[in-house]
Amino acid sequence: MGNDGDERNIRWHHSTVTREQREIQNGHKGMTIWFTGLSASGKSTIANCLEEKLFKMGCHAMVLDGDNIRHGLNKNLGFSKEDREENIRRIGELAKLLTSKAIINIAAFISPFRADRAAARALQDEGDFIEVFIKCPIEVCEERDPKGIYKKARAGIIKDFTGISHPYEEPENPDLVIDSSQNDAAKCADEIINYLRDAGILLTKDAQETKL
Amino acid sequence: MGNDGDERNIRWHHSTVTREQREIQNGHKGMTIWFTGLSASGKSTIANCLEEKLFKMGCHAMVLDGDNIRHGLNKNLGFSKEDREENIRRIGELAKLLTSKAIINIAAFISPFRADRAAARALQDEGDFIEVFIKCPIEVCEERDPKGIYKKARAGIIKDFTGISHPYEEPENPDLVIDSSQNDAAKCADEIINYLRDAGILLTKDAQETKL
Repeated sequence: MGNDGDERNIRWHHSTVTREQREIQNGHKGMTIWFTGLSASGKSTIANCLEEKLFKMGCHAMVLDGDNIRHGLNKNLGFSKEDREENIRRIGELAKLLTSKAIINIAAFISPFRADRAAARALQDEGDFIEVFIKCPIEVCEERDPKGIYKKARAGIIKDFTGISHPYEEPENPDLVIDSSQNDAAKCADEIINYLRDAGILLTKDAQETKL
Repeated sequence: MGNDGDERNIRWHHSTVTREQREIQNGHKGMTIWFTGLSASGKSTIANCLEEKLFKMGCHAMVLDGDNIRHGLNKNLGFSKEDREENIRRIGELAKLLTSKAIINIAAFISPFRADRAAARALQDEGDFIEVFIKCPIEVCEERDPKGIYKKARAGIIKDFTGISHPYEEPENPDLVIDSSQNDAAKCADEIINYLRDAGILLTKDAQETKL
C-alpha cells in the first residue's frame, strides 16, 4: 500500500486536554490490562466482572473483547497467521489510544503469539501495559467448552484452533498470573484490582479504600 | 480473507455495565459528531476546541483525528480509494464502540465520499450520529495551507489530493453546517455545544447550564 504521509506532513495534533487532566477527572490512571489465555479459560467473563467492579468504584473501564471487536473494527479479518497478527495489532493501537485518554482498558483476546503481545506492549510506555495470563489447563477449557467449539476443533470442522491445531505460546514473563481453574471470576477480578491499587493506578481515596 | 466466525459461534458478549449506566455516570449520552470538510477547513482545530470545552463542562469527549489515527490504528493504510474507504470504515467502527461506552466522540476527517460517511452513520442508531459539515471555500483553505500541502498538490508532488486532484463530495443533508471561514474555532465549537444541549445529549444540570 502506498503511503505518502510524509509529503502530506502528517503529524500528531496534540489535544488541548492532556492525559493528566483526564486522569484527575477520572480518578485513576489510564492503563491496558492485556489478558491472554486459551478459549474458554475465562477471559471474557473475568474481564466483564472486572469492568463491573471498576465501574462501581467510579472508574472508567472498557472491555475490548475478541468476539465483540471481530463484529466491528476487525470484521474483515479471518484466522490466518497474518490476519491474527493484524487483529492484535489493531487492538494494540486501540488499547494505546484508550490508555492515553485515561481509560482502564481490558483486552480479552486469546492473543496466542508472544511476538504479537510483545508488539502490543511495545506501543505503550512502561507501566501503562500489563500482561495477565489467564491460566487454565486445556483439559478444563475443553470440558467447559461453552460454545462447543473444542468439539468442532477436535472433529476438524474448525481448523487452526488455538491449543488443538494452532499453537498457543504461554507468556514467559507475565505481570500477573490468574488461575481461573481454581477461582471464580469475582475472585480473579479482585486479584487484578489489588494489583492496580498496589501499582498506584487508582488515584482517588474512594477507589483506594473500597473493600473487596 | 477466510472468516470462519460462524463455526466459532462468535457473538456479542453483553457487558454487565450497560450504556445507560455509563451515561448516568458521565452525565451525558454517548454520541458521534462526525466532521467532514476539506483539508485546512479547520476540522482538527474546532474538534480540539470542542473537546476542551466539553471537558471543562465535565463531559467525557474524545477527538479522533485523521492525522493521529493514521499514526496508529490505520498506519498500514495509504490514500488509494480502497484504503480511504477502509480508513473511514475502521474509524466508523471505533466511533460506534465509543458511543456505546457513553463517550462523546468527535471524528475529524476529510471523509470525502458520501457513501463512506453514510456507511459510518448506518453503523449507529438514529440520534447517535450527527454529520457536521465544516464549510470553508477551497480558496480560503488553500490560502491558509498551514502545512504547505495545497502548494505540493498544485505542483503535483502530492497526488490524489482532495479538492484538487481527488473529489470531495459535499454533504447533501448534514445535521449541522459550520461556516469556518467566518467564525473562529471557539464560536464554531459553541454552535455544536448548543446543538448537543438542544438534542438532549447533556444530562446533568451543570452541563446544561454552562454559559457559553
